[in-house]
Formats: sequence, C-alpha cells, structure tokens
Amino acid sequence: MENLKTYIQSNSQTFLDELFGLIRIPSISSESAHRDDMVKTAQYLVDQLLKAGVDKAEIMPTTGHPVVYGEKIVDPAQPTILVYGHYDVMPVDPLNLWHSPPFEPEIREGKIYARGAVDDKGQLFMQLKAFEYLVSTGQLRFNVKWIIEGEEEMGSPALGKWLPDHKELLKADLILVSDTSMIAIDIPSVTVGLRGLAYMEVEVSGPDKDLHSGLYGGAVANPANVLAKMIASLHDENNHITIPGFYDDVLELTIDDRRDMARAPFNLVEYRKKLDIKATLCEKGYTVNECTGTRPTLDVNGIWSGYTGEGSKTVLPAKAYAKISMRLVPHQDPHKIADLFTRYFESITPDYVKVKVTEHHGGFPYVAPTNTAAYRAASKAYETTFGIKPVPTRSGGSIPIISTFEQVLGIKSILMGFGLDTDAAHSPNENYHLECFYKGIETITWFYKYYQDELNEPNS
Amino acid sequence: MENLKTYIQSNSQTFLDELFGLIRIPSISSESAHRDDMVKTAQYLVDQLLKAGVDKAEIMPTTGHPVVYGEKIVDPAQPTILVYGHYDVMPVDPLNLWHSPPFEPEIREGKIYARGAVDDKGQLFMQLKAFEYLVSTGQLRFNVKWIIEGEEEMGSPALGKWLPDHKELLKADLILVSDTSMIAIDIPSVTVGLRGLAYMEVEVSGPDKDLHSGLYGGAVANPANVLAKMIASLHDENNHITIPGFYDDVLELTIDDRRDMARAPFNLVEYRKKLDIKATLCEKGYTVNECTGTRPTLDVNGIWSGYTGEGSKTVLPAKAYAKISMRLVPHQDPHKIADLFTRYFESITPDYVKVKVTEHHGGFPYVAPTNTAAYRAASKAYETTFGIKPVPTRSGGSIPIISTFEQVLGIKSILMGFGLDTDAAHSPNENYHLECFYKGIETITWFYKYYQDELNEPNS
Repeated sequence: MENLKTYIQSNSQTFLDELFGLIRIPSISSESAHRDDMVKTAQYLVDQLLKAGVDKAEIMPTTGHPVVYGEKIVDPAQPTILVYGHYDVMPVDPLNLWHSPPFEPEIREGKIYARGAVDDKGQLFMQLKAFEYLVSTGQLRFNVKWIIEGEEEMGSPALGKWLPDHKELLKADLILVSDTSMIAIDIPSVTVGLRGLAYMEVEVSGPDKDLHSGLYGGAVANPANVLAKMIASLHDENNHITIPGFYDDVLELTIDDRRDMARAPFNLVEYRKKLDIKATLCEKGYTVNECTGTRPTLDVNGIWSGYTGEGSKTVLPAKAYAKISMRLVPHQDPHKIADLFTRYFESITPDYVKVKVTEHHGGFPYVAPTNTAAYRAASKAYETTFGIKPVPTRSGGSIPIISTFEQVLGIKSILMGFGLDTDAAHSPNENYHLECFYKGIETITWFYKYYQDELNEPNS
Repeated sequence: MENLKTYIQSNSQTFLDELFGLIRIPSISSESAHRDDMVKTAQYLVDQLLKAGVDKAEIMPTTGHPVVYGEKIVDPAQPTILVYGHYDVMPVDPLNLWHSPPFEPEIREGKIYARGAVDDKGQLFMQLKAFEYLVSTGQLRFNVKWIIEGEEEMGSPALGKWLPDHKELLKADLILVSDTSMIAIDIPSVTVGLRGLAYMEVEVSGPDKDLHSGLYGGAVANPANVLAKMIASLHDENNHITIPGFYDDVLELTIDDRRDMARAPFNLVEYRKKLDIKATLCEKGYTVNECTGTRPTLDVNGIWSGYTGEGSKTVLPAKAYAKISMRLVPHQDPHKIADLFTRYFESITPDYVKVKVTEHHGGFPYVAPTNTAAYRAASKAYETTFGIKPVPTRSGGSIPIISTFEQVLGIKSILMGFGLDTDAAHSPNENYHLECFYKGIETITWFYKYYQDELNEPNS
C-alpha cells in the first residue's frame, strides 16, 4: 500500500477526465427524453469496468433502465464483495440557478460542479479507482462483483424486480456502497441508518374546466384552496403527522440512543446560518438530528395549479396537484404507509371536489449494526486517512435498494460515503470536493486491506 | 331601422372575416413576448374604425400598451356616447386542452371558437358594426367617441394613469360597453353591478437553496407546506375570510335586494351539472347568486413550488409562490384590502420562513342605477330583439376601469353584454355564439334609437 498516494497523485488528471466523460452524459432517469442517454452511460461504465480490471462486464436489461454487471473472481474460495452504485442522476431544474451548465463539469475552488458530481457518479468512480489500484498492483484478495443501476433516483423499481431472478449472480458476503455523506470534511462518519420513503401524487379536481374567478368565485370550490387546506391538515400544531396509524410501527428511540446521538458534533447556530433560516421546525420533543435521522416526515416536494406565469390571470383552476413524500424510519412499511395516506387523504376530501391519489416509488428504512468486521474495517480505514475515528450516523436520506438487498439477497451493506451536506445533491450547483474524491479512493483501498485483516482475526 | 336585419344578414360573412382578422393577432397583454402583437392589433382597430365611419382614429401611447382613440362628431350640440372596449386577451394555457388553436378562429356548432371570441374582440366588434350601420344609413344622431385599450385583462393600469390627462378628449354623457354576459341565450340581462378586485402575489422563502428532503426533511420548514397552511388559514369553517377588517366596508344586502335577486331564474341542480361538481361551496348564509354577485371572495389563481415535472424528485423546495385574488363588493377599496391582506399575511408568517407580498392590479367595485334613460333604452332594445325584458343582474366579474371612469371622468356606464357564462371566457375553448353576435349588433343599434327617444322625452 506504500505507493497508494503516489498512484492517486500521478493519475489524478486521468481519473478526472474519465469521471467527466461519465458526468457529461445527462442520465436523468425520471425524464423519458433521456432514455438513450441511460444506455450510453451504461456502456461508458462497461468500458470503465473493463479498463479497471474486471474479468467481464455487461449491460443487462431490466423492466426499466438497464443495469451494469461486472465481476473479477480471484478465487472462488475467497469472500466476495458486491459494489453497488448508480449511474442515474436527478433532474436539473430550476436550470437558471446553476452557475455553470449541469452537464459540463467545471472545477471551481477545489470542487467539481456538475449534476452527479457527488450523487453518485463521483462516489461510484472512487470505488472503481480503488479497485483499479488493487488489481493493477496485484493486491486484490477478494472476489469483487459490481451492480450499477440507472433508477436509484426513482427508488430502484426495476432493480427491485430484477433481483429475485439474479440472486445467484449477485451472491456475496458484503455490499459496499459509496452514496452517502460525512458530517464534515474533517469529521468522517459511517452511515448506519437510512430512512425509507413513500412518495405520493395527489390530484384535486373541481369544475370540469378552468373558470372565470369573478363569475364563479364564491360559489364554486377552488381546488387550489382546497388542496392547501388538505395539506395543512396533515400536520398538527406540534408538527406531528395526523394520518391515523402513521406512527404505529415507528421504533421509538431509547434513552441510550438519544445520548449517543447527542454526542455527534452539531451546532444549531451554524446549521441555521448555513441554510439562511432564522429557526428550524422540528417535531415537538425532538432535536434536529433526531428529526432528520430517526423520525418520519411528510413534505410537499412539488405543488402546482392555475396560472403560474408572468403577471396576473383571474382564473379559478379546474385542478390542483401536489407531490407529497414521507420519509420513514424502522419499522415503517412504505406500502402500508402509502395505503394509510391514500385512505386518509380520501377521507378528508370534501364533497365539492374529487381526489385521485397515486403512488410513486417507495422503500424500506435500513439500520446497520456497528459490531461487524465490515464496520470495524471501515472505521480503521477512515481513521488511517482522516486521522480520526468516524462517527456512526443515521442519515435522513433514503436508498431504498439497500433494504431490498437485505430482504432479497440477505446481505448487509457498509455505507462508506464521502459527500458533504453542503454538496447540494439534488439541488442546483451540485458539487464534490476534490479532496473528498481523492481521500475516498484512498480510504476505500484501505478498507479492502483492513477487511481482510478482520476476516483473518475472527475473534477480534 | 327597417333594413337593419337585412344589412346584418347580407354582411354577415364580411363581419366574420374582419373579426377573424382581429382575433388572429395573439394580443396577450400580460406576456411581454406579445408586445409587438399589441401594436399590430391596435393598428388593425384603427383601420376598422376608419372603415366603420369615424372622422379620425389613432393609436395613442400610454405607460403600457397603447390605446386606440376614435371619434365621429355629428354635431357638437348633441350628446356624446363614449364606447369602451379592449383589444387584449387572456393567456391561453393550458394549451393542450384547446380543441382548435386559440388564435385560429373556427366555427363549430354555431359558435366561434377562439381566444377573444367573446372577451372582448367579438363583443367590441358588435359595437363597431352597429355604429357602421348607423353611419352608413345616415341615422347616427349622437357624437360617438371610442376608447379601446390593451390592458383590461391586467386591470387597466396604463389607462387608469392616462385618463386624468385626457378628460377633455373623452368628455361624454354616457359610456357604452359590451364586455359582460347575459343569464341565458333566451334570457337577456343588463349588468348593473361589478365586483372590484385586489390581486396579490406571495413568495414564501425557506432555506437559501432547494434541499435534499431526506437530509433536511423534519428539521427545516418546507415553504410549500407552510404556504399551504397560510392559505388554509385565510378562510374559516364557514368559508368567511379571516383577514381582520376585510368585511368592514361591505354593503350588506337588504331584504328587498335578496328578494329581487331570488327572482332571477336559477337552477342549482343544472348549475352543478354544467360544471360537473357534486356540491357548491358558498359563504355560510348566502345563496350562489348572492355569493357570486354581492359577496367578496378570496381565491388562489395560481400556486407553484418545487418539482412539478414527470415522476418524482425528493426536494425540499427553497421557495413557494401563490397568486391570490380577492373579488370586492361595494364599498370595499382595493388599496385598503391589499394593505389588510399584506399586513395579515405578514402577521401570520412563522419565524422559520420569510414572506414577500406584492400587489398586482386592482379595481373598485361598481354599481349602476336602473332608473336612468340609458337603462330604460337598453331594456327596450333587448326587449325588441329578444322578445322579453332583460333582468338587471350583478356580475361577479370585475371591469376595474368602469369604476375608474366614474371616479375620474364622472361618467356612468351602461353594460350591454351578450356573452354567456358557458362561453369559457378566460378558459380553454373560449367561444361565442353567432346568434349572440348578430343579435348584439341589432340590439346595440336599437339602443341608439331608444336612447334618443328617451332623451327627447325627459319626463318619461
């Protein structure tokens, strides 16, 4: 491992060139106009996997965007690590807020600015480069399989369906993932919990067409006003969610859990300042970190109705729409929550409008233990490169496929992320620190080494 | 007048050809991309006025879109009628709901389908053609002035500013307007009341950028959720508006007013069926016609925030917006109401968001007396062409300039409209019955005749 740093330094420009080639393909999974870009991106990754040293790599069809599979079998008797990543990215609107075009990566102040820079193309590339180093220097002791999908940002619907038929192909001892964040650039952390997700879309219909708000206003219910009222009623004055049964399966924190969480470095004044808000809005009785890491939420992700252009239009809109998602925690079931939401939303519908509720993707929450060889190896790896032990944290985000892997394949994941909350993942001006990118490659390489040590000392 | 019907019949195709030329120019006043179209439309009207027989016609600049002025002075000693109309139209979105392109007029089932067909190009054209008949047959006994503006759909901001400097030019005894509706195609009505308008836009800002709803959801207030809650709080459970002071200046109906209104033909079952709604939503204690004609309202005309595209995006939006307008009744003052709204909306803003309230155009409500020569003449004219006396009605719509005319010029208006509530003014598939168009020309011509009779019998 002594030449690891030198290897990264001397190849740093090549790594970036290759990553930028990947970023330049606008692989927005949720927009059907980008269907061809998805296949192009998958093909690019097949080439990169082969270059990095896999025995074979291929594009495999699914019911949605294809997955990329690759493998390097050094010895069937040895343990196997399955690396998971995703090549799709979020939509880029509002485009006018980007300081440089989202699919033309640009380096400014030590950061790569582009859609996918951190989520997840940049982080996936660290995995590729750590693997490339180990193969090229003859130090790879594990079998490594790769599964890279194109629908993570949509909740992995196709991969979820594809998995049961490919259990044998993906057989492994551990899943290794870089798609999460650290507390800060100098405070590494390992994510040991992820929230689940239920994502709904609602349509409130009033009259059969847009009406003149003067001629009908006052007598015909306005779907936009009604939708606002319905959304408002989903939280009570303590910011609890009012859907009956919503909290039934929520795992309440123990005193110990809360004490542990309170130890993670957190500065509320800084948090507010960074976001330019005067106050936070938490569920009553819980701290910020408890709320984002361990409590379920309900957020409007989008709302639209009527005239939204320049100036004014006196229209009483025929329809109003909202996208509403709920982050879930152990042991909430996204399908059950989607049902509860639908039933409740329908039940509060007044008779002067009609309501249609549809369900987008969902995912189960996930919790990982810290008393495993994988966690210990990850902890040592971060400590080697960052100089301090990482903090185990629970992220508010969701990677629904992680819990699906556990349910279908029976394999736990280790989440070694190197992003930062300030990277603007999913937002305009998404970026990724070059320092995190290069340190990530180094840390992942060390993980392979320490994981091997851990497995050789089973009683440690 | 004996050849009036023949004149209309033999020229019917020419009238339509000329009107269609006017409709084809997409004069959407609120969209800056159509600035040149506004001037083109004004020029088209100058040509049409000259063709119809005015002595002079010209385009006059204002601080916004220009106005068209024309005049025919038959005898300075005679009374003067000022005809008012507007050449601008509403935006056309959602475009996909139109069955034919909005600016390519098409006749289907006896109706002209196009944006502006009834509001107001079609109705303005009836005025032009009645005038043309009177001039061409040597029967015009009044001086006639024309003021046609291009910002009515925006609330006439520029004309309002232009008026005080052109009082002498517009000096007249009566303003004649065709820009309202009748009860039904066989039940004519004269509009004697118009609601006023205050139109606001609100912006709710949370964090300084869109955030990942997983990483921040539960701790950072979501502006879309907050806006929904704020809008919901603007009505109470009786559908009263909660803004303090909002009803202070509202003229309450007398028992007699209510009895008169209850006489107008109205069928609630038909009303609901026509709009495809199961129930109406009125202010508690008032009927549908009372609510739309004589009570103030508050409606969301547009709302938008976050991701509104295909599929899903787990974003916690930085901002949420709404366009909210209030219809006003005598003696509410739109500026006072705008202030009350702004103060209240700011007062209910929680400390975890910021709010910006801006005011679009507004207008005063208007009420016209029925014991005037103009009303009696209009009543006789409708009776001549429709066979029954028109019903005096109060419309829920607003034509703010009508009350401004009264305030600045000191002239009352007579509102002779021939539209129908089913014409989809402001909506996709706006249309105008050919029968109403031709009957309107006839009725307006008779109005000139009866108005002259009325003035000659001052003690009638």
